[in-house]
Amino acid sequence: MPIAENATARLEAFSDGVFAVAITLLVLGLHVEAKQGQLAHALGSEWPHYATYVVSFLTIGIIWMNHHAQFDRIVRADRTLMLLNLVLLMFVTLIPFPTGLLAGHLSAPSDQHVAAAVYAGTLLAMSVTFFATYLWTTHAGLFSEQIKERHVSYLIRRNAVGLLVYVVAIAMAFVNATASLALCGLTAVYYTFPGKVLD
Amino acid sequence: MPIAENATARLEAFSDGVFAVAITLLVLGLHVEAKQGQLAHALGSEWPHYATYVVSFLTIGIIWMNHHAQFDRIVRADRTLMLLNLVLLMFVTLIPFPTGLLAGHLSAPSDQHVAAAVYAGTLLAMSVTFFATYLWTTHAGLFSEQIKERHVSYLIRRNAVGLLVYVVAIAMAFVNATASLALCGLTAVYYTFPGKVLD
Amino acid sequence: MPIAENATARLEAFSDGVFAVAITLLVLGLHVEAKQGQLAHALGSEWPHYATYVVSFLTIGIIWMNHHAQFDRIVRADRTLMLLNLVLLMFVTLIPFPTGLLAGHLSAPSDQHVAAAVYAGTLLAMSVTFFATYLWTTHAGLFSEQIKERHVSYLIRRNAVGLLVYVVAIAMAFVNATASLALCGLTAVYYTFPGKVLD
Amino acid sequence: MPIAENATARLEAFSDGVFAVAITLLVLGLHVEAKQGQLAHALGSEWPHYATYVVSFLTIGIIWMNHHAQFDRIVRADRTLMLLNLVLLMFVTLIPFPTGLLAGHLSAPSDQHVAAAVYAGTLLAMSVTFFATYLWTTHAGLFSEQIKERHVSYLIRRNAVGLLVYVVAIAMAFVNATASLALCGLTAVYYTFPGKVLD
Repeated sequence: MPIAENATARLEAFSDGVFAVAITLLVLGLHVEAKQGQLAHALGSEWPHYATYVVSFLTIGIIWMNHHAQFDRIVRADRTLMLLNLVLLMFVTLIPFPTGLLAGHLSAPSDQHVAAAVYAGTLLAMSVTFFATYLWTTHAGLFSEQIKERHVSYLIRRNAVGLLVYVVAIAMAFVNATASLALCGLTAVYYTFPGKVLD
Repeated sequence: MPIAENATARLEAFSDGVFAVAITLLVLGLHVEAKQGQLAHALGSEWPHYATYVVSFLTIGIIWMNHHAQFDRIVRADRTLMLLNLVLLMFVTLIPFPTGLLAGHLSAPSDQHVAAAVYAGTLLAMSVTFFATYLWTTHAGLFSEQIKERHVSYLIRRNAVGLLVYVVAIAMAFVNATASLALCGLTAVYYTFPGKVLD
Repeated sequence: MPIAENATARLEAFSDGVFAVAITLLVLGLHVEAKQGQLAHALGSEWPHYATYVVSFLTIGIIWMNHHAQFDRIVRADRTLMLLNLVLLMFVTLIPFPTGLLAGHLSAPSDQHVAAAVYAGTLLAMSVTFFATYLWTTHAGLFSEQIKERHVSYLIRRNAVGLLVYVVAIAMAFVNATASLALCGLTAVYYTFPGKVLD
Repeated sequence: MPIAENATARLEAFSDGVFAVAITLLVLGLHVEAKQGQLAHALGSEWPHYATYVVSFLTIGIIWMNHHAQFDRIVRADRTLMLLNLVLLMFVTLIPFPTGLLAGHLSAPSDQHVAAAVYAGTLLAMSVTFFATYLWTTHAGLFSEQIKERHVSYLIRRNAVGLLVYVVAIAMAFVNATASLALCGLTAVYYTFPGKVLD
C-alpha cells in the first residue's frame, strides 16, 4: 500500500498553520525597557526592531502568498515534495531567530555584519528550498496539466531573481547591515507585484 | 499565466490562523512576581494587565468577526486585496506589543500618555487598513453581486465611526490613559452589536 | 443586509486555532534551572509543573472535544453565539496564566490557596460560559432539528455537573491546593467518557 | 444521542494546528548572548541548539506526515481514538521542553546523560502513543475497508521499529548524549522514506 500521495489539502493546511504562527511570533521580539519618564525616547531608539519586524513580516507574508499560488497549481504531492516543503517550513520558522539577532545588533560596530549575514543567509536558504520545490514539482510532473511550460519557466526565472538578490544581500552585510536589510525589504516589495501576466 | 486570484478559502484560513495566534499570545503578557505570602495582593495590583488583556482580546475578536463577515461577501481576492490583508494582519499581530506597553505603564506619571497613544494608534492603524480593504473591495468589484450598494455604503460608514473614535482615543491618551483604554474597550463592545439590518 | 449568520465553518476553524495555540503554549511554562550535576534532582522537584501541565492540557483538550461535539449539532451561528464563543475562548486562552501561577506556588505555605482558587476559578468561568452557549443555542433554536429535546436536556445536566465540581474545587483550594488540582484533573477524566447514549 | 463519532475532519484540523504551533515554538529556544564583537564566536558555540532544533523539527514534521497518512485511511473517529490522539498531541507539544533541556546540557559532564534520556524518553512516549492509535484503529475497525490487513500489519511493524530505536537511544544517552541525539535524528530521516510499496 503506497503512502497516500495525492491530497495537497492537509499539506496546505499544515503549512498555513506554520506560516501563521511564525509570522505572529515575530512580535515576541518587540519589548522595551525604559527608565521612568523615558518611554517615548526608548520607543524611538527601538527602530531596528520595527524595521526588522516589518521586513520579516512582509517576507514571510510574501513567501506564503507565493506558496499559496504554487500549490494552487499542484494537483498532487509526493513524499519528496512533502519533505522539501518541510525543509522550507524549517527555514520559515527559523526567521524570528535571525530577526531578533539583527534587531539587537543593527548598530553594533562589528557584530552588525555577522547578524546581517546570518539574516540574509536564512532568507537565501529559504529561497533555495522554495526554488527546489519548483524544480521538483516540474520534474515530477506534479503541476496541473493546465499550466503551460513557459509559465513554469517564467516562474522559475522569477524565483531565481530572489536567490541572486539574497546572495548580494549577504555580501552587502559585510559593508553595511542596514543596507543589507533594506535590500531584503525591497525584495519582499518586489514580490508583491504579480509579475508578467502570460496567457 | 496570471497568479491565481479567485480563491479566498486559503486567504481566510491563513488570516484565521494569524488572528488565532495573535489573540492567544496576549496571555504571555500576564505574569506575577510576588514575595512569599503576598500573592493575593500582587494579583490584585495587576489589574492594568487584566484590563488591557480584555480590551485587546475583544478588539482582536471583533475584528476577526468583521473580517469573517466581510470575506463571506467577497467572491474573489486579487493581489491588492491580499496585500492589504497582509498589512491588516501585521497590525493585528502587533497588538500584543502595545498591550504589554500599556499594561506596564497605565499608572506611570508621564509614560502612561505615550503608552496609551501608541496603543490607540496601533488600533487606529489596524482600522484604517481594514477600512482600506472595504474601499478596495468596492472599487475593484470583488463583492458578491448579491450585495446591494447601499449595504456597502452603510458598512463603510459604520467602519468610519471606529476610525473617528480611535482618533479621539489618541487625543484622550494625553489626558488620561485609563480613559483612553476604556474608550477602546467601548469601541469593541459597540462593534459586537450587529448594526442596522437592511434588506 | 444582515451580518452573515449561518456559517459555522469559519467559527469552528478560528476556535480550533485558538484551542490549538492555547494548549501548545502550556509548554512555555516548563523550564528548569539546575546547578551543574543537579539536573536529575531539579527535574524531579518540578513535579508541580508537570501535574498542572497534564491537568490543563487534558482540560483544554476535553473542552475542545465537547466544543467539537456541540458545534456538530449546530446548524447556524448568530451574533450572540459568536460573542459567547469569543468569551469562552478568552477563558481558554487565559488558562496558561493560572497554570503557571499554580505550578509556581503549589507547595507555598499560604499562596497555594490563592493560586489554586484562581486556577479552579478560571476553569469555572470557562465552564459557565460553555454552559451559557448551550442555553443560548437551545433558546435560539440553533441546534439541528434532528437533535431531540431530551438529548439537549441531558447534555445540559451533564455540563452542570462540571460547574458544581469546579465550585467545590474552589472551596477545596482553601484547604489543600493539590487536592483542588486533583479534583480538576478528575473532572477532565470524567468528561473523557462519552456519557449515556440516548437514541 | 451518541456523541458525534464519525467526522475526522475537525480532529485533523485541530491536530494540524497543534503540530504547526509545536513545531514553530521550537525557535523560541534559540537565542544568543554575546559580548560586543563576539557574536560570530557566540553563534558558533550554539551548535547544540541548532542540532536539537533540526532533530526536533524533523521529528515533529515526520510524525505529522505519518499522522496525515494514517488519518487519510481512517473513515471515522470514536471517543477512544480522540483520547489517544489527545495524549499523542500532549507528547508532541511537550517536545520543545526536552529540546531546550538537551540543547542546554549537551556538553555538560554528567547532566548530558539525564537530558538526553529525557529527550529520547519523550520521543519514545510519543511513539508508543502513536503505536497505540494504530492498534486501536485496527482493533475497532476504523480503517477504510480499502485498506488490506497485510498493509496494516506492515505499518504496525514499521512503527515498532521506531519504538525499539528510541529505547536504544535512551540507553545510549547514558553513554553519550550526542550519539543519542544523532540516533534520534537518524530515526527521523529513516521515516522520511516512504517504506515498502505494497499493492
